[in-house]
Amino acid sequence: MEEGGSTLCILVATDCHLGYLEKDEVRRFDSFDTFEEICSLAEKNKVDFLLLGGDLFHENKPSNSTLVKTIEILRRYCMNDRPVQFQVISDQAASLQNRFGQVNYEDRNYNIGLPVFTIHGNHDGPSGVDNVSSNDILSAGNLLNYFGKTDLGCTGVGKVTVYPVFIRKGETYVALYGLGNIRDERLNRMLHEPHAVNWVQPEPGDGTPAYDDWFNILVIHQNRRNYLTETKGSPRNGISELLLPRFLDLVIWGHEHECLIDPQEVPGMVFHVTQPGSSIATSLINAEAKPKHVLLLEIKGTQYRPTKIPLQSVRPFEYAEVVLEDQVDVDPSDEATIHVHLHQIVSNLIEKARESAATGSLPKPPLVRIKVDYSGFSTINSKQFGQNYVGKVANPQDILVFKKSGKRCKITQGSTNSSGEVDINELNQQTIEALVSESNLQMEILSVHDLNSALHDFVNEDDTRAFHSCLQQSIEEARNKLTTATEDSTNIDEQQIACLLDQNMQAPEKEAITEGRTGLQNLQTDTLSVFEKPPTLESDDEPVESSDPEENGSSSSSQQAGRKRRAAPGGGGGFAAAAAGRRKTDLTSFQRAPTKEDDADATKKRRAPVAAGRYGAVIRRR
Amino acid sequence: MEEGGSTLCILVATDCHLGYLEKDEVRRFDSFDTFEEICSLAEKNKVDFLLLGGDLFHENKPSNSTLVKTIEILRRYCMNDRPVQFQVISDQAASLQNRFGQVNYEDRNYNIGLPVFTIHGNHDGPSGVDNVSSNDILSAGNLLNYFGKTDLGCTGVGKVTVYPVFIRKGETYVALYGLGNIRDERLNRMLHEPHAVNWVQPEPGDGTPAYDDWFNILVIHQNRRNYLTETKGSPRNGISELLLPRFLDLVIWGHEHECLIDPQEVPGMVFHVTQPGSSIATSLINAEAKPKHVLLLEIKGTQYRPTKIPLQSVRPFEYAEVVLEDQVDVDPSDEATIHVHLHQIVSNLIEKARESAATGSLPKPPLVRIKVDYSGFSTINSKQFGQNYVGKVANPQDILVFKKSGKRCKITQGSTNSSGEVDINELNQQTIEALVSESNLQMEILSVHDLNSALHDFVNEDDTRAFHSCLQQSIEEARNKLTTATEDSTNIDEQQIACLLDQNMQAPEKEAITEGRTGLQNLQTDTLSVFEKPPTLESDDEPVESSDPEENGSSSSSQQAGRKRRAAPGGGGGFAAAAAGRRKTDLTSFQRAPTKEDDADATKKRRAPVAAGRYGAVIRRR
Repeated sequence: MEEGGSTLCILVATDCHLGYLEKDEVRRFDSFDTFEEICSLAEKNKVDFLLLGGDLFHENKPSNSTLVKTIEILRRYCMNDRPVQFQVISDQAASLQNRFGQVNYEDRNYNIGLPVFTIHGNHDGPSGVDNVSSNDILSAGNLLNYFGKTDLGCTGVGKVTVYPVFIRKGETYVALYGLGNIRDERLNRMLHEPHAVNWVQPEPGDGTPAYDDWFNILVIHQNRRNYLTETKGSPRNGISELLLPRFLDLVIWGHEHECLIDPQEVPGMVFHVTQPGSSIATSLINAEAKPKHVLLLEIKGTQYRPTKIPLQSVRPFEYAEVVLEDQVDVDPSDEATIHVHLHQIVSNLIEKARESAATGSLPKPPLVRIKVDYSGFSTINSKQFGQNYVGKVANPQDILVFKKSGKRCKITQGSTNSSGEVDINELNQQTIEALVSESNLQMEILSVHDLNSALHDFVNEDDTRAFHSCLQQSIEEARNKLTTATEDSTNIDEQQIACLLDQNMQAPEKEAITEGRTGLQNLQTDTLSVFEKPPTLESDDEPVESSDPEENGSSSSSQQAGRKRRAAPGGGGGFAAAAAGRRKTDLTSFQRAPTKEDDADATKKRRAPVAAGRYGAVIRRR
Repeated sequence: MEEGGSTLCILVATDCHLGYLEKDEVRRFDSFDTFEEICSLAEKNKVDFLLLGGDLFHENKPSNSTLVKTIEILRRYCMNDRPVQFQVISDQAASLQNRFGQVNYEDRNYNIGLPVFTIHGNHDGPSGVDNVSSNDILSAGNLLNYFGKTDLGCTGVGKVTVYPVFIRKGETYVALYGLGNIRDERLNRMLHEPHAVNWVQPEPGDGTPAYDDWFNILVIHQNRRNYLTETKGSPRNGISELLLPRFLDLVIWGHEHECLIDPQEVPGMVFHVTQPGSSIATSLINAEAKPKHVLLLEIKGTQYRPTKIPLQSVRPFEYAEVVLEDQVDVDPSDEATIHVHLHQIVSNLIEKARESAATGSLPKPPLVRIKVDYSGFSTINSKQFGQNYVGKVANPQDILVFKKSGKRCKITQGSTNSSGEVDINELNQQTIEALVSESNLQMEILSVHDLNSALHDFVNEDDTRAFHSCLQQSIEEARNKLTTATEDSTNIDEQQIACLLDQNMQAPEKEAITEGRTGLQNLQTDTLSVFEKPPTLESDDEPVESSDPEENGSSSSSQQAGRKRRAAPGGGGGFAAAAAGRRKTDLTSFQRAPTKEDDADATKKRRAPVAAGRYGAVIRRR
């Protein structure tokens, strides 16, 4: 690695879930082992800083033991004499939420050699009266720089101003935006609402370069709906890449545990997305069985070079699916043959894990998961089955999971843990969600979250009107939203909306829902009628094209003219052509606040927020 | 204060209970305000370090918010350029329980100006698989030096080796012993058992002075039974000062919230005891209504000067007791007169609090508690009564507590919160305990703890045999103990034991017990017979004199001859005569390990534990 100079070198990791399964005798140290490896990789590669994408902790209220272990690791790796060779040139108190209001390595009472930056995830987000997150503990102790924490307020959709951390190293200028996890539904609404999300942007002057010469990174922690999964679930079921502002160059996407770390181009957008994936498997699903990586990110000027580094300390995880019907050596009338067949598979997977383990160190007993489609067969006792593998497999108690009707539940290519499969631990929260995504319902009006609540009330509180109220409320909300949308957007096609309203949402398969929970025997069909024909405001099949009112204002065309389309970098020193080729920053779509704010620029303080308008309803190209 | 030189200057505080009532809108910051004042007093008085006696946190699992606030305060006051002018010359890893194994100010990655030393209390003690305390979090973050943490093991009574922190400043040598809270009953047994507690002691050499020239401090966090309260409760109900080793010079006693900060001489012992008391009132009892203080301790050579400093930030607390029967203006047939009378008292107390508040700053609304003996009267609604004081009193909801029969419950002079009065919040744990101490029972065989469990099982689990089993077990235990004691002690008077066994324990007042809990209507008299005539092994009225077998060995007389009775210090620079006069260190009672260990001294490492023998059964002089 080039030290000093103008190359900013960042190690990117996410979803370390420290403290995950801390009570499991076998796996309790897994999260810490890998976090320690990540820190040691940062040290070995002499990066400028370590950047984390949220869910550093598995719980917002980590145990004392987890806090102690985490602090010990950070202290061992972050505190040293290595000089920090970049500067944070933005208002530090605005972007870093702690009482000391500065980046940790500038506190001269601490000898920080490796700064760590992180946002919060859904597991370790702020809560309580004081809006405190577990990351705040580390931040108060000056062990990390916690950014992207927002106070949304309690009323309405809320507004948020994203103050980035402006980083300078030599001639490289990076604006690091962070958006700690917000409930998907809420963030979705905010991204659709004008001015609800203000992205503060660098302004040239004071020796900083023109706007175009900044490299803009966003770290986000949400369910991801990319161009591949765009058709899955409702818009409230994740954040679409297409909703993000176009001035970005690179998006680091946390929360999704599948490792899709190579930056991907988003068709129709100008930025790339890297999804590092978790550093530990918290769901035993196919997506988590892929090798785990972290990303070494070198940025020079406006070019970047991504290098993925495999993690060695991750516990091996082998995953298989088997449809008993299709196996010739399995006899439906003889349970023993099922046993023999499944034991054979487990043995093979253990062997496979052993072979692929790094040589030299004693390999950890692997995680093994077999998803068994047992249609036409009887299940076998999973716990009993696992007793043969105590000491050989890290999860003997749940090697096997049984599912009927594999056809309906088959994992779609590219699906993620949050929408693809129901994790046994998250059954309470995810039943409706999973059913909805399995059936590929287009739930545009009804919120899955509200449905879950309704289901909960129906089953646990005996509230027979739960689904009815949920429906009423959702329709009311949709009507209001529609009215607002019509008022806001000048060129929205009213006929198109009316047409959308008439469209019927696909009816769900009722059996799937009644099957989903054992407590549902009493489910009254009239309450389920809410699923049948609600109006739909927006459909993914027929995307609504709408534009921001300000985009058509008098100022925007001149603004756009003033922004050049950034030329592909030529040469780029030691950077690979791949990286150079990927670099496309198109600013034509970037929207600014009205002209009067522009006129007032000269008198404004440097860091005043620039209202970035509405990024929501862009054309979806698929 | 004299800086540098040979005067070690320590600020002593205890029981800060950070996070106490953190959900109370009015009082949530109280604990933090006072802790901040303590830190600022340490800074203002330029002490060498701050010494805390346990219960820094109110909960072992403090909330994120409490952790953040605590870390922020410590970081603000502890991290600075002030040079630390003392050295820790003992094996730091042995006495300080953290992974980094050194005193915090020696880590050159941190700029520590004010070191803090603490033991744990009963509220913030270690727990869980990893035996982790909330203090470990601060210790891992290098914000404090956590000592006195012991791993007792799971079997038997357990053994503990107390490794002191040896501190040197100029010509002053201090051995700082710490014993974090251990269950009273267990510590009592350990202190009675030979070799169960090993006090590691300094050995001369390597430039350190002779043993007699060390000043020995013990920080302990237990219920305290001193010569005044010695007759109260069972020996398992607290630790007697008389059980502590005689080589100590000063004992800092945490846990007891009453401020008895002026060092008191213990008759028959050679050390003084200071009981700083909590820095926040967590029980609204008389003992907590006294002004709160911290202690400034200056040690030069083997002399010390104590200076108590009143805490200004503590919320005013006024306490009164009233016996309605004795009031001339209260008419039993007219409830209104009770109201008028009590409102008058509250007004007076509020006025009193206002007058005694520090001038200048806006005084906090005070805590007010009136204990009303309503014998012969009806109670009034305490919540309703308090509504007049919202905003004027910090605890409007519980100003009044009602008690019948004031004669029986009268607070004994000098009693403490743990044994003197039943706190409403601790009713579950303390009912039996309170009854026992109220009736002044000599419960020598039956453990109050076991009786509590039995009561619990009897009431909640419908276990009619609970008291019977409890009795059987206790008798069995007493028998075993007796056998061991007879084997161990060579000059124990067997006749005396037989005589003690024949003595009858005072019979309890049955009504008191049956009155104590409403759930006890079904109490069967046969189960209560356990109270009546159990044998008693040991009685405070006739103390058993016993000595350690090794004390009679060949080596002890010569050892004792080698130890001079420390002469009263002459002159002592700027030290008051009071301090000098108090100083009495009598080492004749100090017991050493057998000779063969002494012979091996030359080859032993400097810090090897010296088995200090058995300090238990000393003569109790009263």
